[in-house]
Amino acid sequence: MTRFVPAGFRVAGVNCGIKSNPSKNDLTLIVTDQPCVAAGVYTQNLIFAAPVAVDRARTPSARIRAIVANSGNANACTGHRGLRDALDMARQGAAVCQAAEDQALVLSTGIIGEYLPMEKIARGITLAAQNLDGDESAFVQAARGILTTDRQHKVADRTVHIGDRPIRIVGMAKGAGMIGPRMATLLGVLLTDAPLSAGSAQNVLQQVADASFNCISVEGHTSTNDTLLLLASGQAGGEPLAGVELAQFQKALLGLCEELAPLIPADGEGATHLITIHANGCATPAAARQIAQTVANSALVKTAVAGADPNWGRIVSAAGYAQVPFDPAGVTLRVNGHLLYARGEPVAFDAAAVSASMRAEPETRIELAFTEGQAGIRFWTSDLTAEYIRINADYHT
Amino acid sequence: MTRFVPAGFRVAGVNCGIKSNPSKNDLTLIVTDQPCVAAGVYTQNLIFAAPVAVDRARTPSARIRAIVANSGNANACTGHRGLRDALDMARQGAAVCQAAEDQALVLSTGIIGEYLPMEKIARGITLAAQNLDGDESAFVQAARGILTTDRQHKVADRTVHIGDRPIRIVGMAKGAGMIGPRMATLLGVLLTDAPLSAGSAQNVLQQVADASFNCISVEGHTSTNDTLLLLASGQAGGEPLAGVELAQFQKALLGLCEELAPLIPADGEGATHLITIHANGCATPAAARQIAQTVANSALVKTAVAGADPNWGRIVSAAGYAQVPFDPAGVTLRVNGHLLYARGEPVAFDAAAVSASMRAEPETRIELAFTEGQAGIRFWTSDLTAEYIRINADYHT
Repeated sequence: MTRFVPAGFRVAGVNCGIKSNPSKNDLTLIVTDQPCVAAGVYTQNLIFAAPVAVDRARTPSARIRAIVANSGNANACTGHRGLRDALDMARQGAAVCQAAEDQALVLSTGIIGEYLPMEKIARGITLAAQNLDGDESAFVQAARGILTTDRQHKVADRTVHIGDRPIRIVGMAKGAGMIGPRMATLLGVLLTDAPLSAGSAQNVLQQVADASFNCISVEGHTSTNDTLLLLASGQAGGEPLAGVELAQFQKALLGLCEELAPLIPADGEGATHLITIHANGCATPAAARQIAQTVANSALVKTAVAGADPNWGRIVSAAGYAQVPFDPAGVTLRVNGHLLYARGEPVAFDAAAVSASMRAEPETRIELAFTEGQAGIRFWTSDLTAEYIRINADYHT
Repeated sequence: MTRFVPAGFRVAGVNCGIKSNPSKNDLTLIVTDQPCVAAGVYTQNLIFAAPVAVDRARTPSARIRAIVANSGNANACTGHRGLRDALDMARQGAAVCQAAEDQALVLSTGIIGEYLPMEKIARGITLAAQNLDGDESAFVQAARGILTTDRQHKVADRTVHIGDRPIRIVGMAKGAGMIGPRMATLLGVLLTDAPLSAGSAQNVLQQVADASFNCISVEGHTSTNDTLLLLASGQAGGEPLAGVELAQFQKALLGLCEELAPLIPADGEGATHLITIHANGCATPAAARQIAQTVANSALVKTAVAGADPNWGRIVSAAGYAQVPFDPAGVTLRVNGHLLYARGEPVAFDAAAVSASMRAEPETRIELAFTEGQAGIRFWTSDLTAEYIRINADYHT
């Protein structure tokens, strides 16, 4: 089969019985041929899960050999036993490739407050070890192993040429789930054969995450398990990337993450629209982020999009309470390219036409412009529908 | 009829045709016999409505004679013409009691981005002027004139004895609305015959608002029109309150506002439960507020309450992303008095019993305790139901 995964990695995804439906994968294994560079960014929640504690202590690193991930159980709020289970799960993953127990990372997503079913995990690791491969089918199986109730798996890949070397990058992610307590949880894994130092990998990953995975929300509830990992095998060859070449790699990785990250709100619980919010003309990047995020988290904006309502009042007033100073007389707003509000005043527009475009298109583009400076951001979120409520309020009735 | 409104005030509420249903009031007039002290606190939104601009410039004051309020139209985002309309509305209210045009305040709530129907407003003021009274019925009619789609009017009253003087305080408020763009808007008016200096009135009102009306949310979207006014006629007699007596008055006013404010989320759009969140043991009052507000605004917490789900994971993890440092091992959580989480670990509890109590009681009490200090807060919000989505997404279909 054609190789899809970057050189140096093999992957597998299987069902080991954590999810009762055997057609749904619940365990993913990624192993490397040689020790490789690993970087990670993690949830900022003070209440964080055991796998986050393990991985945070082990990254950045230049000697990682494996990642073991499971869905169906988040191993969060499980105390000392949960930490012991996460360490045990890592040890078993490392053993697949005869590595030391601290050379593996772990990811978990799903129900919180319950202990991991360690017998199933062990069986799954054994089964996955027999199915490791580098083709596209194996990568999709692996990407399916980290899903909870996502409607579809989320992968992206690209090959970029840096200097004379073709560099391969692939990524997988999962979005909002609905298992048990249903914490929206983000997990992402990026694999590359680029040669990177551990320090560069960590630095690049943090910057890329800030402009991609940290620019999405479903309902704004930061989970206990959010983790994004980058593994670099270096098997594309040559010295670790630096300077212009490192910048080229970062740009390619960002491009991939900008493709992967919005798949999460597009597949958000109950979502019928992806909402893309641009905030431009801001004084600082932090100000742009704060405004875009406040608009993204407004239930009134999200329900307006669900109802195909070009409700400029809700959008402009959400920006107004973002606790970022701006000149109200300088605000301009476009929705799906239609001008609704210019320089601080509403303008006449064809509401039926804008509503029809919102109804017809799966993505709603909200463009806010200010007159404070040059900074901007793009932020993605989901609309808010009765189906979201059904999923999160009525699931046990 | 028995006097209900404090001495020095007469009030009326009428329908003047802004709302098409003639049984729903849409204009409220409050006049005073003599110039009185007025204090106000207003929306922090940078996008604020014309009436907010007018009132903010006119308070605190010692010479206010009238308040004119309308529902059905918020006079927000209406530019220069909106400001002229607000000033004109105030002038007409002042004329009812032969006062100067700058001796009146104005309040508006309802649809945003449309000009006030000034002919209807003028007719309403004339009609209301013929119906001014001081009895309870007149006050209820006045309280009905500021409602949008609140299911019921919201009033509270009390008489307190300060020194040898009985002091009368009455208040009215409105909550989440659903007219046109449906901005959740808070309006509140407090009337008293207490003698207060303008400076004391402003100071007391700000402190009382911070502990009552600023501790509620429905979906966390700060409106363009939020306004809370306190008018003090001084007709209880004597020198302006100071020292211990002023503190007694503040306590009484706070008690009244603690009764009035939670009526708003209890009657929030689509709400089936009032949620009361206590955050105690925090380092500072600001930290307690930040934690309680973050829990209150979590869609996952609000849907869990709607579904009668004692979902401690959602509550504890919402506290965890409030961006307030705390020791996770010191967190304790009770829901409706049941201990769910103690000192950083989940505890065994009877989930069916807690769920049954959440289903049976109209109020869900969430008590979070930390080990950082002595500061605490009580915060009120609504649960989140499919009816909220219907109101805000589907209203024009």
